Amino acid sequence: MLEELKQKVYEANMMLPRYQLVTFTWGNVSGVCREKGVFVIKPSGVPYEELRPQDMVVVDFDGNKVEGEMNPSSDTPTHAYLYKHWERIGGVVHTHSSYATSWAQSGRSIPCYGTTHADYYYGEIPCLRTLTKAEIDDAYEKNTGVLIVDSFGQMKKDYTAVPACLCKNHGPFAWGKDPVDAVHSAVVLEEVAKMAYRTELINPKVAPAPQELQDKHYYRKHGANAYYGQARK
Amino acid sequence: MLEELKQKVYEANMMLPRYQLVTFTWGNVSGVCREKGVFVIKPSGVPYEELRPQDMVVVDFDGNKVEGEMNPSSDTPTHAYLYKHWERIGGVVHTHSSYATSWAQSGRSIPCYGTTHADYYYGEIPCLRTLTKAEIDDAYEKNTGVLIVDSFGQMKKDYTAVPACLCKNHGPFAWGKDPVDAVHSAVVLEEVAKMAYRTELINPKVAPAPQELQDKHYYRKHGANAYYGQARK
Amino acid sequence: MLEELKQKVYEANMMLPRYQLVTFTWGNVSGVCREKGVFVIKPSGVPYEELRPQDMVVVDFDGNKVEGEMNPSSDTPTHAYLYKHWERIGGVVHTHSSYATSWAQSGRSIPCYGTTHADYYYGEIPCLRTLTKAEIDDAYEKNTGVLIVDSFGQMKKDYTAVPACLCKNHGPFAWGKDPVDAVHSAVVLEEVAKMAYRTELINPKVAPAPQELQDKHYYRKHGANAYYGQARK
Amino acid sequence: MLEELKQKVYEANMMLPRYQLVTFTWGNVSGVCREKGVFVIKPSGVPYEELRPQDMVVVDFDGNKVEGEMNPSSDTPTHAYLYKHWERIGGVVHTHSSYATSWAQSGRSIPCYGTTHADYYYGEIPCLRTLTKAEIDDAYEKNTGVLIVDSFGQMKKDYTAVPACLCKNHGPFAWGKDPVDAVHSAVVLEEVAKMAYRTELINPKVAPAPQELQDKHYYRKHGANAYYGQARK
Repeated sequence: MLEELKQKVYEANMMLPRYQLVTFTWGNVSGVCREKGVFVIKPSGVPYEELRPQDMVVVDFDGNKVEGEMNPSSDTPTHAYLYKHWERIGGVVHTHSSYATSWAQSGRSIPCYGTTHADYYYGEIPCLRTLTKAEIDDAYEKNTGVLIVDSFGQMKKDYTAVPACLCKNHGPFAWGKDPVDAVHSAVVLEEVAKMAYRTELINPKVAPAPQELQDKHYYRKHGANAYYGQARK
Repeated sequence: MLEELKQKVYEANMMLPRYQLVTFTWGNVSGVCREKGVFVIKPSGVPYEELRPQDMVVVDFDGNKVEGEMNPSSDTPTHAYLYKHWERIGGVVHTHSSYATSWAQSGRSIPCYGTTHADYYYGEIPCLRTLTKAEIDDAYEKNTGVLIVDSFGQMKKDYTAVPACLCKNHGPFAWGKDPVDAVHSAVVLEEVAKMAYRTELINPKVAPAPQELQDKHYYRKHGANAYYGQARK
Repeated sequence: MLEELKQKVYEANMMLPRYQLVTFTWGNVSGVCREKGVFVIKPSGVPYEELRPQDMVVVDFDGNKVEGEMNPSSDTPTHAYLYKHWERIGGVVHTHSSYATSWAQSGRSIPCYGTTHADYYYGEIPCLRTLTKAEIDDAYEKNTGVLIVDSFGQMKKDYTAVPACLCKNHGPFAWGKDPVDAVHSAVVLEEVAKMAYRTELINPKVAPAPQELQDKHYYRKHGANAYYGQARK
Repeated sequence: MLEELKQKVYEANMMLPRYQLVTFTWGNVSGVCREKGVFVIKPSGVPYEELRPQDMVVVDFDGNKVEGEMNPSSDTPTHAYLYKHWERIGGVVHTHSSYATSWAQSGRSIPCYGTTHADYYYGEIPCLRTLTKAEIDDAYEKNTGVLIVDSFGQMKKDYTAVPACLCKNHGPFAWGKDPVDAVHSAVVLEEVAKMAYRTELINPKVAPAPQELQDKHYYRKHGANAYYGQARK
């Protein structure tokens, strides 16, 4: 089932090594089929050079395997929770990409220092708290998803306007309207994390970009009045 | 029209991914035809791997499209203003290259710390102020050009002697006598930005290079008494 | 003798340039044959592009050459001592990989700042003291092995749970159940060292990851209740 | 004349882009023929991808061109002075490699923080002063050579034991027994400069490696009792 989606998710997974977001097997991409209420995800611990489209695993929104010979990614319950609660996402990606993970390890949100950031994310990219011992001991991966969804709710952040977050002491999750779009977000996140790191080292007293500049760049690319790129046919 | 210039501008654009100055579509190069009073520029948001010479768009100095099926780069009004007001430039490039953008985000001009810088730029590479809300809301991209031209005028800087600047919270613009020369400047700017960053981390109290050394290297390569390279035939 | 092991050790050595852990000849991998009480190691100072499987040298646990035309790696006595005293290791690797060596030069152990680290190493990766002048003058390379084994004993660290260390002012040693697994550890060490460096620059007051999170990730991948990856057949 | 040496110098020059020591044309390698009292050097400003062995220029120890159609490197008088005064060198290289140049721009010598450094350089790699205005205005490139030779004399440093230096606000020069050996030194210098930079950022109070460890590693590879590598036949 879902041969086309499996192919898409496979190809999105293969973008991770190409964009240098993963070492060994440290990353996974999934893509959803809203109609059937399932998603397709990379199998756990399989090296990218051995990965094949038919190895992708089909899982429902409670994290139960629906089809596939292999175990799905160990982060599957996080993906499942995001798909279940965020209806406007079509793809999710988790990596340990180097700069984004360093920000996550530092426990800091990434401020919006410029238009590269503002072109993709509306405001800072939040670093969420570490899970409690109770949350870790009981359903760690699912509780990671719960924390992400709850945090965006509490912060009143639109998850389509900030399609990524950092999990403290862990690493980034990113998402998008489909698997390729989610990987796109993960690539931009890594680049933005790299620049923010260097920006602070060049000027430790730097402030975020003015709000009007953030607005200009975000809305130049998003929403009804966007004018970047070519008209979609 | 302008097939030869389109080919040149296409090739100069393709240098951006080769020199690792762009992620995705974050950059654009243009080249001017002074005789016809128009310039040729990359279309907006087209991935480099899909770009073709015939996709280049022809635009006049007020930013009006003269020929081409696609939308020109969203930064076209900035390019147009530079060509209109700076008669001695033949190519313009904008990127979000990582180190130069980090300096732009930090709001700092790049001091001249050594001969690598002095070989190409006479004195510091200025970081211009952020645009005001009024300038952003009304013709943002054109006003970026206005700011660049006005700033060089106020600073009494010769734009051919300092062929690049940083736009605060945004990124670099570079220029040159033709499109390839402009990309050349963008590559050097990124390298100089990288070294200046590391120089300050190695020695936070570092001072710029002595003026006589800056003069020596700049004039070794530029002007009537230059003796670097081979005689141009 | 040991043609199969020589091939494996050769291939593990060739992973070092592929994963960018070595410049020139600065690294060596060995693999053990417990049955015969010998190990196979790279010859000293041979460039990787010229290396062949048949060039590997066979050595006993006291560092005496058993077979081979070339001199074994100058670090052979360190490898020998580790194999002699640590019965559960099958491969050893030494490199001067850039970030791990920078930590070693700084004289600091690498704290566990996140799950990337915790997935592979249980707790910090220790930086051992410099050898004394007496230890350096008499059997330097063997004494490096003595220091590693003694230090892990004194720290009551399980060498299979922390399969790497830093030798102060020198560089990293890593090990594993076979030569490829040892190289795997060296790759992860370099990545973890890179992230820890950036983490501290982003947040100089950062603390290690909570113990319960370290436990969760370590035991998710290791021990009786591990559930990462595919079941081994 | 000197076809064999031209080929060697050509090949050594082509190592610079391969080891990522140069951007555009920012580097040059030369090699000497002691018998004839001349050396062979890269022509000035020629891109590496267009360089051919027959383009190499033959120059005497006073910097006069002896053979060749092109202008020699603008740094030729520096090379000439080194060959004239240092009889035991056979190759010289100048680059603007990124980390070494950053140290040169910072005005600091590179301390010996570990064995990677000690394996190749005996003690710190000195950063020499900037030339005076008089020295710059009159025979700048020759005076760079004078400063290098005089400084090593005043510091009582053996130039074969420390085969590189930094020229303040400029960049590195390195040398060796032949052109390839000189490039080898330039590669190691860049790697050592990179690690020293990171070492200080990890531990701002770091001290150089103990002298006995520096001695051990230097003499393990150099001099009568060296035991690294294979016996030279």
